[in-house]
Amino acid sequence: MAVVATKQYQSLTQESAISLASELSLFPDEAKLTCEEIGDGNLNYVFLITDQMNGSGVIIKQALPYAKVIGESWPLTLKRAKIEASALKKHGEYAADLVPKVYETDENLAITVMEDLSHLTIVREGLIKGESYPKLSTDIGNYLALTLYHTSDFALHPFEKKALVIEFSNPELCKITEDLIFTDPFFDHETNDFEPALQVEVEKIWNNKLLKLEVAKLKRSFLTEAEALLHGDLHTGSVFASEEETKVIDPEFAFYGPIGFDIGLFLANLIVQSITREGKQRDVIHGHIRNTWTTFSSKFAGFLELSEFDSFKDIEGYNAFLLEKIFHDSLGFAGCELIRRTIGLAHVKDLDSIENEKKRILLKKQTLKTGERLIVSRQEIDSIDAVIELLGEIKYEYSIID
Amino acid sequence: MAVVATKQYQSLTQESAISLASELSLFPDEAKLTCEEIGDGNLNYVFLITDQMNGSGVIIKQALPYAKVIGESWPLTLKRAKIEASALKKHGEYAADLVPKVYETDENLAITVMEDLSHLTIVREGLIKGESYPKLSTDIGNYLALTLYHTSDFALHPFEKKALVIEFSNPELCKITEDLIFTDPFFDHETNDFEPALQVEVEKIWNNKLLKLEVAKLKRSFLTEAEALLHGDLHTGSVFASEEETKVIDPEFAFYGPIGFDIGLFLANLIVQSITREGKQRDVIHGHIRNTWTTFSSKFAGFLELSEFDSFKDIEGYNAFLLEKIFHDSLGFAGCELIRRTIGLAHVKDLDSIENEKKRILLKKQTLKTGERLIVSRQEIDSIDAVIELLGEIKYEYSIID
Repeated sequence: MAVVATKQYQSLTQESAISLASELSLFPDEAKLTCEEIGDGNLNYVFLITDQMNGSGVIIKQALPYAKVIGESWPLTLKRAKIEASALKKHGEYAADLVPKVYETDENLAITVMEDLSHLTIVREGLIKGESYPKLSTDIGNYLALTLYHTSDFALHPFEKKALVIEFSNPELCKITEDLIFTDPFFDHETNDFEPALQVEVEKIWNNKLLKLEVAKLKRSFLTEAEALLHGDLHTGSVFASEEETKVIDPEFAFYGPIGFDIGLFLANLIVQSITREGKQRDVIHGHIRNTWTTFSSKFAGFLELSEFDSFKDIEGYNAFLLEKIFHDSLGFAGCELIRRTIGLAHVKDLDSIENEKKRILLKKQTLKTGERLIVSRQEIDSIDAVIELLGEIKYEYSIID
Repeated sequence: MAVVATKQYQSLTQESAISLASELSLFPDEAKLTCEEIGDGNLNYVFLITDQMNGSGVIIKQALPYAKVIGESWPLTLKRAKIEASALKKHGEYAADLVPKVYETDENLAITVMEDLSHLTIVREGLIKGESYPKLSTDIGNYLALTLYHTSDFALHPFEKKALVIEFSNPELCKITEDLIFTDPFFDHETNDFEPALQVEVEKIWNNKLLKLEVAKLKRSFLTEAEALLHGDLHTGSVFASEEETKVIDPEFAFYGPIGFDIGLFLANLIVQSITREGKQRDVIHGHIRNTWTTFSSKFAGFLELSEFDSFKDIEGYNAFLLEKIFHDSLGFAGCELIRRTIGLAHVKDLDSIENEKKRILLKKQTLKTGERLIVSRQEIDSIDAVIELLGEIKYEYSIID
């Protein structure tokens, strides 16, 4: 990295991205490189550099010093590029096939040069189109078990774990989550964004003391519980996949937090798909929901039994206690994600792209209701099947009402 | 600190401690300085430098690069001197009258120059002698509320809190606690140290699956829950007091951990005193136990209502939930402390100094029993009065048996 390590931060252009790829000797000398900016452009540039001679490519991702989603006025730490690259590498130690390879990083330029995954599709986009990802939930269940177990106190010497807690301290991006997932949607806050037809439901949320009490507990957990190195933003837009492959990208929100947060975010984004679907198409998603949890939990439980650092691993009931805690936490975090994706600042295309207004509003109400139920009843929901049952009940409730 | 900042670490002697005090201009030029090493010498030197002209003094505390308790073979990070000085200063921001003033620090020499408190006595020693500290529990309750609230997410901007989590990362000293409080006493481990007459009780502990399950949960909390900047070792040997004053010293184990840990350690060390006493002398201690909790909890609750950073502070039930969690955590941690002080590596003089063997063994059994009950039943114990009732029951149980 000596070539670029001394550079001052400046935004890359398509031309300078190609120059950088050449300087880094990532392609043969005779390569004919072209460049395309393929990011959604909210927080980062994503340049795809392709060698026209053989079609091989790399991605150069550069963090922008501001969030474009609400204009250039929201500055955002460039340190997140380093966090993202470090998290990809750390998670890659345990789940090498499930994250992109990192070739180079440069902290000054806030760039990560990594594996080109453009042959895959973003899972959110694919699911909306009805694409099938047969390996998705097995791969994500494994990814969750591998990354979360191996960065926890169960798998690491306490000195190593505590060093990672420092390395992955990520206050700025955690603050975004603290505000946008755990706070603003539950109060009449200016960042919220919801359709006027939801006004009554939204006010019910703001006035639901029991719900807010439970959200407060979940936020407390997010603020204080350093259980494992999380991805931190594991929605279906952070997963690239095909029928054969799954790759988890974009861990710029990585930090040491509660294990259930990653699981809950992923489950919530599957639940949104379930809510938008009917009949057998729902069953596909319910299969993924069930399989994500069962794959994670069986693998994680297996790891716990082999823990090198947990003196209490053989104590009857302890591993079950841990998995129950993670399960209930996951449901609560899933509930928060469902609500914030419906009425908070950052929406999901799964719901917003539904053109029929009556249907869209109905499904958004179902999403809110599901979120509330998961948050308030999470301690009573005792299995992943009970979650799927609840999804059925909520559709049914509304079909009577409307 | 320019004077000493360039020095390499070397153990101070009485002579070099006097030279250092002179160099630092802590006394007038005409001062006639004398020096006495007054530490218990396990982990640190504590030099008291006194000006014979007027009796004024300062303490120079120097961390040793090893723990003398088990010989020079146990190296111990010198970084703890910096942690201790920083924690005294940080806690001093909120509880200035309850901690010693820090005059100077030097990281290379691992020294802290601080207020001379030699007019006070160590509370453990005083309580053993039957001395009265009428302000003790009010002062410690206030100290706990002030230091724990003001370093928590409720009082600090998340960026500031997360910076402090890094500053006070203390893996080496946490490891001592993880091993000696939460692990070794519950297994047949070589660090344990107990009288042969306790063999049956000790084996019962090692075989008590329910107890070990609950200890596992408490250890998990200690490893993961970064709630506030703890003292980390708040037993009665870490408190200097008189009838008028209370000063908390020695926070070298400071780190971000669960709030109940500090409270639990202090309560446990009062409970040991309760177990060694009879009649009205017990009531004095029970008064301190009750008052420590009620002072802490009422003050902490008052602070929560004014929280600048907790959006959920006005949600009915949330502050009560927090205080209940802290209370139950405190009881569990107190239980661990009671057990480890009886059968683990580091004992307490309150019990070990009892010369009558039959009495000593009986009281040690009561201490173990109390620890077990607090750990296993902590979620069912709903008030500090119920704790005091339990202390009475356990004395009664044994008086029937023996």
